[in-house]
Amino acid sequence: MRVLVPFDVREPKTRLSAVFTASQRASFARIMLTDVLSVLQQAGHDPTVVSTAELSCECPVRVDQRPLSDAINGAIEAFDVPLAVVMADLPLLTVETVERLFDASGDVVIAPGLGGGTNALVVRIPEFRVDYHGASFQDHCAVASTIDASCTTVDSFRLALDIDRPDDLIEVLLHGEFESVEWLIDEGFELDTSGQQPKLLQSGESI
Amino acid sequence: MRVLVPFDVREPKTRLSAVFTASQRASFARIMLTDVLSVLQQAGHDPTVVSTAELSCECPVRVDQRPLSDAINGAIEAFDVPLAVVMADLPLLTVETVERLFDASGDVVIAPGLGGGTNALVVRIPEFRVDYHGASFQDHCAVASTIDASCTTVDSFRLALDIDRPDDLIEVLLHGEFESVEWLIDEGFELDTSGQQPKLLQSGESI
Repeated sequence: MRVLVPFDVREPKTRLSAVFTASQRASFARIMLTDVLSVLQQAGHDPTVVSTAELSCECPVRVDQRPLSDAINGAIEAFDVPLAVVMADLPLLTVETVERLFDASGDVVIAPGLGGGTNALVVRIPEFRVDYHGASFQDHCAVASTIDASCTTVDSFRLALDIDRPDDLIEVLLHGEFESVEWLIDEGFELDTSGQQPKLLQSGESI
Repeated sequence: MRVLVPFDVREPKTRLSAVFTASQRASFARIMLTDVLSVLQQAGHDPTVVSTAELSCECPVRVDQRPLSDAINGAIEAFDVPLAVVMADLPLLTVETVERLFDASGDVVIAPGLGGGTNALVVRIPEFRVDYHGASFQDHCAVASTIDASCTTVDSFRLALDIDRPDDLIEVLLHGEFESVEWLIDEGFELDTSGQQPKLLQSGESI
């Protein structure tokens, strides 16, 4: 199945500005993309990056400068179904998780993100169109219902955790297995697990 | 399999004080317990509540005033293995999720919570003891390793979401299926999904 991985080259991960410099944000976004592409490849898929600009990448890149929903709907029309869309900021993704996503039956399969987003999507019906604005999980379920498509959700913590806020990095340090967690450790991030809740430290200092 | 559900009657859910009165916190904690017990029963289990005080409840109650870890370790010794511990503040739990937890193989099966806790645990080896203080997910994996027990983790968003902070209620409103979400709606909570991120409203006002 064709798998699209959207990637925004411009100003990535602004909500991580409290803990990362602009350069670190760009590096971390790129390393998470590498992890996601690598896991998809290990699971036997051949991902295409849908990028807002040219990108040096180990996988094919389709450049589309339109907003995310338009770019993905353009790709659905260009490539036809079945087709999947997996977000680039899912550093906890594993081969097993990817297999659960693709093994789920349904005309539309959705892995919700924390906060109501759509972190991964499998589309098996050509009439389906995405709308990533706002609480897209509910919207995508409603779109499926409108076109009489069956809709399944995948219950996965690893798929639900997209990286938006500094606290999300705690989960990467706890559960990450690939390059994203190595990068965080190399940049001096670690966990203080002495209290009731783990806290993020950088170079030994609370942040 | 015997399933223990710990419940702290004293000052529950203090981190929800920003959105709930003390009475609402107690009510919501109790209604989440009802949801968890009901789902466990529907999945064919016979849960026992391990409570810090007497409790009027539809299931058997074992009162133990000791700290959580001591109370659960006392129960492991009293009841022997196999035995499971499922937290009471998991309002997204479904029968399917419970089945995945119990179907997972391993001497010790852990469902991690957001923030590094242990939201559910299956223990099949009598030497295992719990320690819920701090980042207990990592500690429980380490304990299993120390006693040469195999340790499996369950990748579930529904098991990962324990309710601690006001933002967690957004997930209940998005994905809840049982009494906890009905209670929130009855108390005037709803979502504003007009922006990029859903926001919690109470009686139409941002909180």
